[in-house]
Amino acid sequence: MKFVSCHGLHVCFVKSMSLCVLFPVPPLSPVVSQLTRYPIRQPHWNRHSYTTLINPNMVNAGDMNGSGNLMDFLDEPFPDVGTYEDFHTIDWLREKSRDTDRHRKITSKSKESIWEFIKSLLDAWSGWVVMLLIGLLAGTLAGVIDLAVDWMTDLKEGVCLSAFWYSHEQCCWTSNETTFDDRDKCPQWQKWSELLVGQSEGASAYILNYFLYIMWALCFAFLAVSLVRVFAPYACGSGIPEIKTILSGFIIRGYLGKWTLLIKTVTLVLVVSSGLSLGKEGPLVHVACCCGNFFSSLFSKYSKNEGKRREVLSAAAAAGVSVAFGAPIGGVLFSLEEVSYYFPLKTLWRSFFAALVAAFTLRSINPFGNSRLVLFYVEYHTPWYMAELFPFILLGVFGGLWGTLFIRCNIAWCRRRKTTRLGKYPVLEVIVITAITAIIAYPNPYTRRSTSELISELFNDCGALESSQLCDYVNDPNMTRPVDDIPDRPAGPGVYTAMWQLALALVFKIVITIFTFGMKIPSGLFIPSMAVGAMAGRMVGIGVEQLAYHHHDWIIFRNWCRPGADCVTPGLYAMVGAAACLGGVTRMTVSLVVIMFELTGGLEYIVPLMAAAVTSKWVADAFGKEGIYEAHIHLNGYPFLDVKDEFTHRTLATDVMRPRRGEAPLSVLTQDSMTVEDVETLIKETDYNGFPVVVSKDSERLIGFAQRRELILAIKNARQRQDGVVSNSIVYFTEDPPELPPNSPHPLKLRRILNLSPFTVTDHTPMETVVDIFRKLGLRQCLVTRSGRLLGIITKKDVLRHMAQMANQDPESIMFN
Amino acid sequence: MKFVSCHGLHVCFVKSMSLCVLFPVPPLSPVVSQLTRYPIRQPHWNRHSYTTLINPNMVNAGDMNGSGNLMDFLDEPFPDVGTYEDFHTIDWLREKSRDTDRHRKITSKSKESIWEFIKSLLDAWSGWVVMLLIGLLAGTLAGVIDLAVDWMTDLKEGVCLSAFWYSHEQCCWTSNETTFDDRDKCPQWQKWSELLVGQSEGASAYILNYFLYIMWALCFAFLAVSLVRVFAPYACGSGIPEIKTILSGFIIRGYLGKWTLLIKTVTLVLVVSSGLSLGKEGPLVHVACCCGNFFSSLFSKYSKNEGKRREVLSAAAAAGVSVAFGAPIGGVLFSLEEVSYYFPLKTLWRSFFAALVAAFTLRSINPFGNSRLVLFYVEYHTPWYMAELFPFILLGVFGGLWGTLFIRCNIAWCRRRKTTRLGKYPVLEVIVITAITAIIAYPNPYTRRSTSELISELFNDCGALESSQLCDYVNDPNMTRPVDDIPDRPAGPGVYTAMWQLALALVFKIVITIFTFGMKIPSGLFIPSMAVGAMAGRMVGIGVEQLAYHHHDWIIFRNWCRPGADCVTPGLYAMVGAAACLGGVTRMTVSLVVIMFELTGGLEYIVPLMAAAVTSKWVADAFGKEGIYEAHIHLNGYPFLDVKDEFTHRTLATDVMRPRRGEAPLSVLTQDSMTVEDVETLIKETDYNGFPVVVSKDSERLIGFAQRRELILAIKNARQRQDGVVSNSIVYFTEDPPELPPNSPHPLKLRRILNLSPFTVTDHTPMETVVDIFRKLGLRQCLVTRSGRLLGIITKKDVLRHMAQMANQDPESIMFN
Repeated sequence: MKFVSCHGLHVCFVKSMSLCVLFPVPPLSPVVSQLTRYPIRQPHWNRHSYTTLINPNMVNAGDMNGSGNLMDFLDEPFPDVGTYEDFHTIDWLREKSRDTDRHRKITSKSKESIWEFIKSLLDAWSGWVVMLLIGLLAGTLAGVIDLAVDWMTDLKEGVCLSAFWYSHEQCCWTSNETTFDDRDKCPQWQKWSELLVGQSEGASAYILNYFLYIMWALCFAFLAVSLVRVFAPYACGSGIPEIKTILSGFIIRGYLGKWTLLIKTVTLVLVVSSGLSLGKEGPLVHVACCCGNFFSSLFSKYSKNEGKRREVLSAAAAAGVSVAFGAPIGGVLFSLEEVSYYFPLKTLWRSFFAALVAAFTLRSINPFGNSRLVLFYVEYHTPWYMAELFPFILLGVFGGLWGTLFIRCNIAWCRRRKTTRLGKYPVLEVIVITAITAIIAYPNPYTRRSTSELISELFNDCGALESSQLCDYVNDPNMTRPVDDIPDRPAGPGVYTAMWQLALALVFKIVITIFTFGMKIPSGLFIPSMAVGAMAGRMVGIGVEQLAYHHHDWIIFRNWCRPGADCVTPGLYAMVGAAACLGGVTRMTVSLVVIMFELTGGLEYIVPLMAAAVTSKWVADAFGKEGIYEAHIHLNGYPFLDVKDEFTHRTLATDVMRPRRGEAPLSVLTQDSMTVEDVETLIKETDYNGFPVVVSKDSERLIGFAQRRELILAIKNARQRQDGVVSNSIVYFTEDPPELPPNSPHPLKLRRILNLSPFTVTDHTPMETVVDIFRKLGLRQCLVTRSGRLLGIITKKDVLRHMAQMANQDPESIMFN
Repeated sequence: MKFVSCHGLHVCFVKSMSLCVLFPVPPLSPVVSQLTRYPIRQPHWNRHSYTTLINPNMVNAGDMNGSGNLMDFLDEPFPDVGTYEDFHTIDWLREKSRDTDRHRKITSKSKESIWEFIKSLLDAWSGWVVMLLIGLLAGTLAGVIDLAVDWMTDLKEGVCLSAFWYSHEQCCWTSNETTFDDRDKCPQWQKWSELLVGQSEGASAYILNYFLYIMWALCFAFLAVSLVRVFAPYACGSGIPEIKTILSGFIIRGYLGKWTLLIKTVTLVLVVSSGLSLGKEGPLVHVACCCGNFFSSLFSKYSKNEGKRREVLSAAAAAGVSVAFGAPIGGVLFSLEEVSYYFPLKTLWRSFFAALVAAFTLRSINPFGNSRLVLFYVEYHTPWYMAELFPFILLGVFGGLWGTLFIRCNIAWCRRRKTTRLGKYPVLEVIVITAITAIIAYPNPYTRRSTSELISELFNDCGALESSQLCDYVNDPNMTRPVDDIPDRPAGPGVYTAMWQLALALVFKIVITIFTFGMKIPSGLFIPSMAVGAMAGRMVGIGVEQLAYHHHDWIIFRNWCRPGADCVTPGLYAMVGAAACLGGVTRMTVSLVVIMFELTGGLEYIVPLMAAAVTSKWVADAFGKEGIYEAHIHLNGYPFLDVKDEFTHRTLATDVMRPRRGEAPLSVLTQDSMTVEDVETLIKETDYNGFPVVVSKDSERLIGFAQRRELILAIKNARQRQDGVVSNSIVYFTEDPPELPPNSPHPLKLRRILNLSPFTVTDHTPMETVVDIFRKLGLRQCLVTRSGRLLGIITKKDVLRHMAQMANQDPESIMFN
């Protein structure tokens, strides 16, 4: 086997490159196109456009005898090349370049034949196909989860005799013996006590039902936590912090895998049914992203490009929120505002499409039985008045305080779980919390039922058919219509009871949610947060209503709330409170308001919602800038460069780069003076992901960057396949290695794996600019130079650690690269 | 006057810098803070963080005798420094850095006293205050415009005797003698013929009314075009292409000025009233942006920073759309999808706030008299059916074709106007087009009325009270309720007449709009596009409806359209058609759908709207990627680097950089070998905006970049104020100039104006990466190096020209830098 003349190879490179620049590019032959599929031939970081133009025929032809052997080791596909290691950060620029290459290849091939043209069309449409599939699957899963949760929640209390798979509502709905007034009661539906001991009332029946309620809850929870532990540890939590990190360009293998999808779906049903204080909305986003990941793995356009895959995942997150709340526009805005990192316009409308498909699939399944998209449809009869803004803003303040309290306590508890022995008994923890929740929740009607039912009742206006305790107002005896919508009435005893029960339920929810979120089971906190806000809001609303009834003559009421006028809607207060609390915890604003009005169908109430959401955000931000998701990201040490954080310190690149003063000099490769052995030693002795290549140790002028992974593969292959490459062989990164004396060992030419356009900044660049560059271009690392001399390197981890240090946090908390 | 020791100055720089890095930064003294206000002390491009730390007290003290004189010329404020020249591009990174500096300064000062703390709070809140003011003014202006247009449109036909400032509707609304059936007729409202010759019917009255209609139209149009020509030439057109360019970082002085605001508001009323085929929606965005510019000039935070100002303008654009359509969420999405370039999340919710305030201000003015936000409120009684998707998609295809036709013809006509003698007679052109429009429009009832009334009628469902010709269906004689909403009827003669008139109106609108858009008057094309679509859609809708009526037994109708069923709503087709045509012209998708459903209040019709919008976009994109706004941007040669364009060619930085092969070498400065005279000669002989500074002409190792403007100012001031600086003085950009022989002229030290962190890429960097960098970081120029050696420079203009060349367009069409 012979050695290829370096000069010849270079000429070939440059020729084909200049060809493409100066003349129209001739279509690549299929052979070349196939060969260029494997990214090994592209330097890993910023690959160069022209690498796709390497033509092995040209290399093998003419004066370049024996070059075949050199080519061989580059032509063969290596597993895992072009992918990233687990818990590493992707390089967005490189992913984008790779996709552009792929696109170019397909475009040029599409002119060859009709078949290739159709293939290129299919490729262009694959994005929409993936969106359609995600929408269909996410919508279906959400519908199935809703139905299953409905059934299993009711199973804790009783069973339907006519068909055990019916939930309470379905059971009585299909029964003919139900009267309109008492929709909840029908002979087919039997409480456990009725079925087992034939009693539905009385202390013993109550205790039996209580006991069975707790047993079912413990059973569901135990099953859920065991499934998560055994089959899919990543299925726990809400998943949104991790999805944010993944979308920002981090690799967590298996986090969006098929097992996670399956187990999360099943356990989500179990934990929600168990009555724990958690919601299914956050986990549904995770489930939708798993769907997105699954379908993107079917199309090479997405499966082989981590950047493109993240576009699909962003859209999937939108579909997830869309089905969680029946809010397609809110879902897209949530994905844009809260979750996504790189969100090009193309993704915007694809997300919208996926969200729409998902919402319509869910509507066809119709789990809520009202053939509406919205979860808590409300219809208020009265507008809101300017004076009501004051209680709305108060609710905003409450929401902000709740958000702060929740985040602080929850993070403190989670940290304790991580660092103490508590974390070693996740199953026991779940069992204990479930038991406590079930024991305390059962006696109170507002905590016994499912949280979404509770929210729905709190949002509702007291209409004619409302049998709820909350609508137990004293009727005016002079009125002839006893059950119609009568405004301006004094509260009856039921309302006062409800107020007490709501207050107790509020305290219980606040406390238990802090301990529930973060356990090793799927758990979202949209619904618990909204419940807290809705309870507080409804209480405030009833208070304002009664105040107005008893004091019509007060100045603030005189203008808009005359006797007999229907002026205060307590349900609206509940809605505003829910938005405020959700905003305080997650710090969403626009997407929150849009979700809320899509959720409730109330386009008229944007201003109250906005006022509460913005107040809540301001109050919460005053105590700490982080929302719950960012807080969990920091807690877990993920390398997440938040777009919202502003870096305002006065440091320079030179302060952040490594090596620091006093540290060993930077490990570099030289372009033409190191032997294979030297390189291997360097690789062995360090664990850096790549090495800058300089002209010589003295001049230190930067010429490129070589990835560790590619170096190892290239040397290994050369040693195996190229005769003459031995430990003493010189490694050349130059274009034209010099003619060597005849008996010297064959040199190893590695210019191909060299990234010739590494990203550089000067040592005087302010760190705010560096942070901006890392953020906007999605870099993994950046070299620091002064007048062309290499001084050091800054990685994303360095940037994050520096930011943590400047914010007086522990820089060691950033754990991944 | 004496010369400051360079070494001493440098030490001072570095000391203060390392201070801030290693230790907590002590609060700056008020003197320093005040001095650092003027940007001259910041190198212009990427200014360095530490320049704000220069402490003149330190420089004047100790061993740096006489340094005061050197400092002087840097301390004094120069007019226009820190601003940009007209028709130049801003540097986003630099603007961001400057704002961070300002923010840092205020934060550190806020700890000094309560007053400073309050000032810092005010500064932090100024963004919200600006938004509030923009919302209030934009809403008010929109309301005033709506009222004035209403009145003046009716003035063309007649006058209200009881109060001449009442429009037709207001006049008859206040009249007691109006019956409910005939709301249009009341004795107070008199047509001109009635008033002048006492006849309201008959040929002579018709001709008189016709003549006066044309005269009023000509009068309004002449006044409008004259006002625009004399007072504010920038007030013409829709303004959106220019606003897009400005938001992307271009300077057009006066485009958003107070005169433009005033004249555009006044002339907008005139041209809309004159009956020309144009809308007020696009210009309202311009008006709102003028408001934004006005209010941002009141706050130094925004007036002194072109980047921050653009955040305000993005929000103002959202407010503009919000009042144009009564669609706050749609406005924010429009700003995000269509107009804005740099849209951080903070701007998202501020935009939302501004849009909400604007919409509510407009609602309080209540120009449409229905106390709704929405322009064309509709209420349909029937849902849509899957089978209807086919005509909806057909309408989408029509919209796409219309978009393509309109853009091609309009651009061709505008180009002709620019290049031939036609462009020299703008007043005559407006008069002629107005005359043609008025002459053709009057006889047809669908073109005589204002376009928004037409759209409103076309969108409407035929209800009980509808007296429109379009609702002239034959009533079933067996039905007892003659005027109620009766579905499934055959069309009467009125409907057939209406179809013919609509068809003629459609052709007329299509042709005349092409010639109208682009004249020297304010003109938007949202409304004309929507009118075209609504007319086509209504006709298709009536067609489908009658087809269903006559063929209930066809398979496609059998399932959902049984005899007697109310299955087809022609108004919905009009709505879908309007969305399709608007989408074809502007290529909006998500924002379009959201605007449409906010506009009409129909949340249920997202899927038909989405299907039509996406089809329309696909069809139109197949003929050309550019929307009308991008086409006008290209026509005018603005330097707009579109985020949506993907650059997929295989060129490298080396192919784009200047100097090209064969051109004169790059004009550079050396760090320590050029005299003042050399520099002055270089400045005189070239017109570059800046010069790279290298170590020496031989090594060409890059050390920084100096702005032309700063160089000129620095040398001018040094010559005036520093004794000993003569033409022979050596210019030093180094840190430590060598000790000079005693009788040599005083050197001129210019390191302070040197940007030490110029942005560089290597010559091997693929152009797609370079384009990405320019786009995402908002650069003006970028230096090209190889192994630290300077090879050339790439400016934004070079990038745009290269992109034009690659797309087979004329690179010389990019005219500005």
